[in-house]
Amino acid sequence: MSSTGDVGAVQPHQFTFAQQQPFPLDSGATLSPVSLTYETYGQLNADRSNAILITHALSGSAHAAGHYEPEDGRLGWWDDCIGPGKAFDTDRFFVICSNVLGGCYGSTGPTHIDPATQTPYGMRFPVVTIGDMVRAQVRLVDYLEIDQLLCVAGGSMGGMQALEWAAAYPQRVRAAIPIATTAHHSPMLIALSEVGRQAIYADPAWNNGDYHDAEVKPDAGLAVARMVGHITYLSEESMQQKFGRRLQDRVRYGYEFRTEFQVESYLKYKGNNFTRRFDANSYLYITKAMDYFDLSAATGSLAAAFANSAALKYLVVSFTSDWLYPSYHSKELVSALTAAGADVTYLDVQSSWGHDAFLLEVETMTSLLGSFLDRLVHDEDIALPAGPSSHPPTRNHKGRKTGVAA
Amino acid sequence: MSSTGDVGAVQPHQFTFAQQQPFPLDSGATLSPVSLTYETYGQLNADRSNAILITHALSGSAHAAGHYEPEDGRLGWWDDCIGPGKAFDTDRFFVICSNVLGGCYGSTGPTHIDPATQTPYGMRFPVVTIGDMVRAQVRLVDYLEIDQLLCVAGGSMGGMQALEWAAAYPQRVRAAIPIATTAHHSPMLIALSEVGRQAIYADPAWNNGDYHDAEVKPDAGLAVARMVGHITYLSEESMQQKFGRRLQDRVRYGYEFRTEFQVESYLKYKGNNFTRRFDANSYLYITKAMDYFDLSAATGSLAAAFANSAALKYLVVSFTSDWLYPSYHSKELVSALTAAGADVTYLDVQSSWGHDAFLLEVETMTSLLGSFLDRLVHDEDIALPAGPSSHPPTRNHKGRKTGVAA
Repeated sequence: MSSTGDVGAVQPHQFTFAQQQPFPLDSGATLSPVSLTYETYGQLNADRSNAILITHALSGSAHAAGHYEPEDGRLGWWDDCIGPGKAFDTDRFFVICSNVLGGCYGSTGPTHIDPATQTPYGMRFPVVTIGDMVRAQVRLVDYLEIDQLLCVAGGSMGGMQALEWAAAYPQRVRAAIPIATTAHHSPMLIALSEVGRQAIYADPAWNNGDYHDAEVKPDAGLAVARMVGHITYLSEESMQQKFGRRLQDRVRYGYEFRTEFQVESYLKYKGNNFTRRFDANSYLYITKAMDYFDLSAATGSLAAAFANSAALKYLVVSFTSDWLYPSYHSKELVSALTAAGADVTYLDVQSSWGHDAFLLEVETMTSLLGSFLDRLVHDEDIALPAGPSSHPPTRNHKGRKTGVAA
Repeated sequence: MSSTGDVGAVQPHQFTFAQQQPFPLDSGATLSPVSLTYETYGQLNADRSNAILITHALSGSAHAAGHYEPEDGRLGWWDDCIGPGKAFDTDRFFVICSNVLGGCYGSTGPTHIDPATQTPYGMRFPVVTIGDMVRAQVRLVDYLEIDQLLCVAGGSMGGMQALEWAAAYPQRVRAAIPIATTAHHSPMLIALSEVGRQAIYADPAWNNGDYHDAEVKPDAGLAVARMVGHITYLSEESMQQKFGRRLQDRVRYGYEFRTEFQVESYLKYKGNNFTRRFDANSYLYITKAMDYFDLSAATGSLAAAFANSAALKYLVVSFTSDWLYPSYHSKELVSALTAAGADVTYLDVQSSWGHDAFLLEVETMTSLLGSFLDRLVHDEDIALPAGPSSHPPTRNHKGRKTGVAA
């Protein structure tokens, strides 16, 4: 019997800023206005010190936990880790998640109307960076009247945002949890991004990004990009376990070009499914933002990038079978943080699930995140939210007491 | 000063068979006629016992060594290892390489005229397997009046053919050298094949394979497929060494969607280049043949597949950074061969070059192949070709005596 709960029904909120004063971007361009879609779970405590910002990966959204009403069966993307008694315990923490700038889940991005033309931005949307995404999140945190986040946590591109917060806004955050990520997007990551983009460009329906009124969208190109992505999220070992060479709905080879192997069927399903929920131009912009991410570019060294962030606590997590963001990236990060004098906890989690492990290794993540946050709450003397807990104290499967402050 | 020579000017030959009796394929379909384009280097000895068949990978051809006249600057794809004094020493061996069935470098494939319709086969070409490719090579070897090959050697898909030869024609070959390969195409390999195929299908110019008379070819889709391939041929480490995050012809980010990073430029170049030399339908057929490759499918165990091949000698080579055909595939193969009672030499070569290492680690390959072939020549008592050597005996950079028989 699970002793952890669910955040239940949630709804997205919209925060709009830069209506008067345009929002400046790293590229030199500006945006006005800027909207961020966000969700929150749990309650902010009296001194507004228990807020955790969750930052999402490439295809994520603000919908990190719970479900929408009427219930559509789609739980938030990190529901396994966010909720009463879960890793990010909503009985103790006020959890915020916003869709990134440039995204297609409500925040200002290429699908939005360009006020200058009254048509969707498409490829007229300015290129954004991880720095821009974080700067927009800072505005949201300002709006929520939170001076200092307890922590910023995210995997993959979410981890880049967590690192950017730590490096650029060390006064605004007490801790950072970068998971399965890197401080500089590697050439292999850039190469994989570029292949996805080339697949989209190659689709005539993409039409230089101008397809919003068209009947045919660049679904074929976007599906190929997503298929490439899905291969990289798994490991060779997890593919062996999950699919092997098993055939889909047949007992012998058909000697034809239809889908025959389960792994082909899986990829096609994932690719096609993605086109129903994601915008091709957003895919271009978000992958480009990741490609530009290089925390040491400005300072010349990663340790220097964290020179002002030594007061923060860090939990760095990598996974042994993640070949997309191999462990040595995290190790390099840990060395730099240590050199900068920061308090770093690092674990290279033994897992066969590849990059996806950060979403799948729930038990390990719960234990790791739980211990780290417990210590943080203790060291930083964080109070419980005001008001009674909505459910009795429970113990989660790791035996950690939940529902009451540590 | 290099002490090894070059095979010099070469020319392709054509061998046509199955004009009367159709050639049966694994699928149950037949082909008639079948042509194989092949090249040979060196001289066959008096008892026709010094022939080595080189089998090529996905994008390879019969042009494994030397150059065509008038010299076009393009050396054969394995010229580093084939020539006087090189690993496959053409002073000692008669080296044969043929384009695979289904290919687009002269052998019968989808670009060829279907006698039934007098138009190019396109997707009416029957699906072929690695077994079919090898069965066609057997016909070529018959035609060359070679009862028994000294060995069959190849990397990647070439290694699959070497294994197929050993398993299916143990009487026709004394040794096999499968390099950077596998005995069963893994789900990750199938997934990567399928993504490449989907990129081609997604290109409207592909037109269900019927594009041979069209002005626009499915170059965009084929280029994306090839870009995916190129990423998999490198390792994360080799990409770091080769490209890092260096920009191409610019000093700072452009904040635009043009090619900015060197690795993007490399991929685009490789992708576009490929479309000038390869046929999209052939890409589909050859990847499909690889996907079907599973030596243990028929017998249920890999050791059983080699039960009749115990008399052969094997040199199995893998590369530590090859994540496409990881070393454990070769280790599994070595276990099976050992269990079958075969004489196996195995080396997992320390290399940062990923799958491409089999073409790039020339010095190591020369040494490895040289020692193995020396032993083979000695054990099997292979004579030198008749006639004087065209150049004096030399020592190659490993100090191995060349130009005279061991």
